[in-house]
Amino acid sequence: MTYNVQIKVMPLKDLLDPQGKAVMGGLKNLGINSVEDVRIGKHITLQIDADSEDAAKALADEASKKLLANPVMEFYEIEMIN
Amino acid sequence: MTYNVQIKVMPLKDLLDPQGKAVMGGLKNLGINSVEDVRIGKHITLQIDADSEDAAKALADEASKKLLANPVMEFYEIEMIN
Repeated sequence: MTYNVQIKVMPLKDLLDPQGKAVMGGLKNLGINSVEDVRIGKHITLQIDADSEDAAKALADEASKKLLANPVMEFYEIEMIN
Repeated sequence: MTYNVQIKVMPLKDLLDPQGKAVMGGLKNLGINSVEDVRIGKHITLQIDADSEDAAKALADEASKKLLANPVMEFYEIEMIN
């Protein structure tokens, strides 16, 4: 069966997020001043062919560890959509 | 009050996603073959100072339209966290 998995990869909370800071500056230039913080990460959706939801989730976890997220700078969260 | 808003910005379903295709190739090189499709977008979290949840959501929508998403190539979804 095919499972849809969402992975959210975000910069660690303690680290500066320069891309987010740049976007916050852009919002202020557009007159949107009430945004206090912006953080930007990646949103990844995978379609995984697996025997069970647990197997699909385990595979997504392996993919995140090996390729999608850099644990030195990022954390990830996996969510099943089905 | 401060509201936390998540915005998911993804490439439109009909468009090719070259970044996703590259990641799928990378996963195959790592021996992960059961991933059938990968799509990669942005995950943005905003902290917005607003009077109500509706006002915060409207501001996030305005920010998405004006700066965060390119409607020619991307769609976005807004989700309140609080």
